[in-house]
Amino acid sequence: MTDHVYKQVELTGSSPASIEDAIQQAVSRASKTVRNMRWLEVTGIRAHIEEANVSHYQVSMKIGFTLDD
Amino acid sequence: MTDHVYKQVELTGSSPASIEDAIQQAVSRASKTVRNMRWLEVTGIRAHIEEANVSHYQVSMKIGFTLDD
Amino acid sequence: MTDHVYKQVELTGSSPASIEDAIQQAVSRASKTVRNMRWLEVTGIRAHIEEANVSHYQVSMKIGFTLDD
Amino acid sequence: MTDHVYKQVELTGSSPASIEDAIQQAVSRASKTVRNMRWLEVTGIRAHIEEANVSHYQVSMKIGFTLDD
Amino acid sequence: MTDHVYKQVELTGSSPASIEDAIQQAVSRASKTVRNMRWLEVTGIRAHIEEANVSHYQVSMKIGFTLDD
Amino acid sequence: MTDHVYKQVELTGSSPASIEDAIQQAVSRASKTVRNMRWLEVTGIRAHIEEANVSHYQVSMKIGFTLDD
Amino acid sequence: MTDHVYKQVELTGSSPASIEDAIQQAVSRASKTVRNMRWLEVTGIRAHIEEANVSHYQVSMKIGFTLDD
Amino acid sequence: MTDHVYKQVELTGSSPASIEDAIQQAVSRASKTVRNMRWLEVTGIRAHIEEANVSHYQVSMKIGFTLDD
Amino acid sequence: MTDHVYKQVELTGSSPASIEDAIQQAVSRASKTVRNMRWLEVTGIRAHIEEANVSHYQVSMKIGFTLDD
Amino acid sequence: MTDHVYKQVELTGSSPASIEDAIQQAVSRASKTVRNMRWLEVTGIRAHIEEANVSHYQVSMKIGFTLDD
Amino acid sequence: MTDHVYKQVELTGSSPASIEDAIQQAVSRASKTVRNMRWLEVTGIRAHIEEANVSHYQVSMKIGFTLDD
Amino acid sequence: MTDHVYKQVELTGSSPASIEDAIQQAVSRASKTVRNMRWLEVTGIRAHIEEANVSHYQVSMKIGFTLDD
Repeated sequence: MTDHVYKQVELTGSSPASIEDAIQQAVSRASKTVRNMRWLEVTGIRAHIEEANVSHYQVSMKIGFTLDD
Repeated sequence: MTDHVYKQVELTGSSPASIEDAIQQAVSRASKTVRNMRWLEVTGIRAHIEEANVSHYQVSMKIGFTLDD
Repeated sequence: MTDHVYKQVELTGSSPASIEDAIQQAVSRASKTVRNMRWLEVTGIRAHIEEANVSHYQVSMKIGFTLDD
Repeated sequence: MTDHVYKQVELTGSSPASIEDAIQQAVSRASKTVRNMRWLEVTGIRAHIEEANVSHYQVSMKIGFTLDD
Repeated sequence: MTDHVYKQVELTGSSPASIEDAIQQAVSRASKTVRNMRWLEVTGIRAHIEEANVSHYQVSMKIGFTLDD
Repeated sequence: MTDHVYKQVELTGSSPASIEDAIQQAVSRASKTVRNMRWLEVTGIRAHIEEANVSHYQVSMKIGFTLDD
Repeated sequence: MTDHVYKQVELTGSSPASIEDAIQQAVSRASKTVRNMRWLEVTGIRAHIEEANVSHYQVSMKIGFTLDD
Repeated sequence: MTDHVYKQVELTGSSPASIEDAIQQAVSRASKTVRNMRWLEVTGIRAHIEEANVSHYQVSMKIGFTLDD
Repeated sequence: MTDHVYKQVELTGSSPASIEDAIQQAVSRASKTVRNMRWLEVTGIRAHIEEANVSHYQVSMKIGFTLDD
Repeated sequence: MTDHVYKQVELTGSSPASIEDAIQQAVSRASKTVRNMRWLEVTGIRAHIEEANVSHYQVSMKIGFTLDD
Repeated sequence: MTDHVYKQVELTGSSPASIEDAIQQAVSRASKTVRNMRWLEVTGIRAHIEEANVSHYQVSMKIGFTLDD
Repeated sequence: MTDHVYKQVELTGSSPASIEDAIQQAVSRASKTVRNMRWLEVTGIRAHIEEANVSHYQVSMKIGFTLDD
């Protein structure tokens, strides 16, 4: 893995269930167009509130993937 | 939603169960005195440790709400 | 608790299950060599991706403990 | 002005016209309930986009005011 | 809007007229290739100087847009 | 102390004597309207200068207090 | 422009009119003593408030200029 | 160069030789798909360690390029 | 001092008297196990509040020391 | 004070006595060459350690002063 | 590598030759007492100046290593 | 060295050769007007790109020097 070049993209995933599910939603959506994803780093956690309850989490993240040669 | 003025307050919620529950505890408590809460942004995640186990999470957040006209 | 001196160490815990479990993994491992742990503060949340799914979370944290006199 | 205690509140103002007008909207709204405002510090500039045009600016700021004795 | 995945791109717009116009220049250019832009967040304001006058503003921003399903 | 919800307010205290006294001035003033203050975190230290001498310190801080149930 | 050495100075300009005018005020004043200014970067935007209105903007910036050989 | 719109992408280059070579690796790889690259800004320097020696450097950077009209 | 390797540890000292004394408390405690301490850098200043008075300061710091060859 | 242009310089003052005295040392030294100093903002607090005791504090600060017309 | 717990330590290495050599000096020194080092992250680059020349570089870094079970 | 007052200036040096040479270029140029330079701290690393190659590095730094009494 030592001589690769990586690219990072910044996405935000949403989920009413949990922070972890919001992360997975973004990864799943990204997999439609990006190959070779390796890791992600959370850059922000937000949530929307409706009638005094968290209605869904919004987790922003940078996803790194290997650029094919 | 374009011409509102929002105010943000900073709260910290606690829960032995999960990070998500600590967030909800703060939102529920805030709803006793604040109306029209719209979103929140997590600003810090801490936890207390007792006998080598996490005893409860403490999540700090900014909560934004619309100011009534 | 007012006149103690605390030391902080920085650890990273991993778990395929959840962010909370990754935190507990680090606390459990630290308890083998560190006594009197009091609190922790999350400093970063990362995850590894395998075949478009989060394979495990990596949570970095500072753990504070009281120095024995 | 040397021996006052100041309090800061964080607000977000909106305007379709300009960043300066969004700031003034927040100050005007705050003046309904806060006296003795002295200064503000911009903490973030955002905008909403509709059909490829900025529809309105959202400027967040801390507003400082003197606490009455 | 709760279950979308968003992507952010970072652009820099330029204008001799104003900060607001530099923002709009970037949004207009982005609209040629990006659909469903929703919001932007300013990440930096710079300007070029020629003969003791600001010749043009350069405003950097993150633009968020919904990913089509 | 594990299941409380805390609120933080941001204040600035002033004193010609010392940084510590400026902190105490803010805490004393806040105690007129806020109960159950627990801790504070310094967010900035400034000072005013008159004729080449520091005339007074201005210390900004976040003060956390327990919200009554 | 590749082999120059640049120096940066930090200034704050004021204007009752706009953020852009506050920037220009600082550049104009600096031009009395500094030659070869090339660019600036905004480091903070503040404003003073008088009777619930913004009375003037204060924009801080780093100004970069080429050092003559 | 005053009226262009720029886009930034974030890449990470690797090299066992030096930090400068890791930067060049990322620029060379990016040139396969991106035209008109103008500048880069280093956002992080990491390295992998094998048997008490740095095996390769990993340098992350934002690369800015002009968007064609 | 040019060819040493330094290590930094992060400690928090407490004192009811002053910020300076809280720093010294941490340095004194560290001296029981660490030799060759050279400098420290303050990373945070907090205080505990009891009945509207600062009861003690908590100052966090990184302490750097030379590693013996 | 509304239409002035300010310049900031960054200094570090030292003192074996206290943080406040280190600040005053820098202000006193600066007054030999700079007129119209108005305020300062602390940007860092460090200290040197000799034989397990703080030997002197080093406080870095930005000092702002009005530029004469 | 997914279920390890990592610890990070912060070191500063020095070298008159280059930034890369200063990094290697710290890694070599750490290897005397720490096993299983995996990666490092540069947290600061400084240099000492003697008679208008850089005499040696000082590079601070966090070094991560696996904790043995 | 304990009772000096230091001043910091911010410079940017350029070099097509290496990051280290860009640092030295700034130090050499500064030595024409500044005496008693002691240390520098890198605040940013950028590079210009021409035809898919790094044409020169631009390293920004704060340089600290002792103020003569």
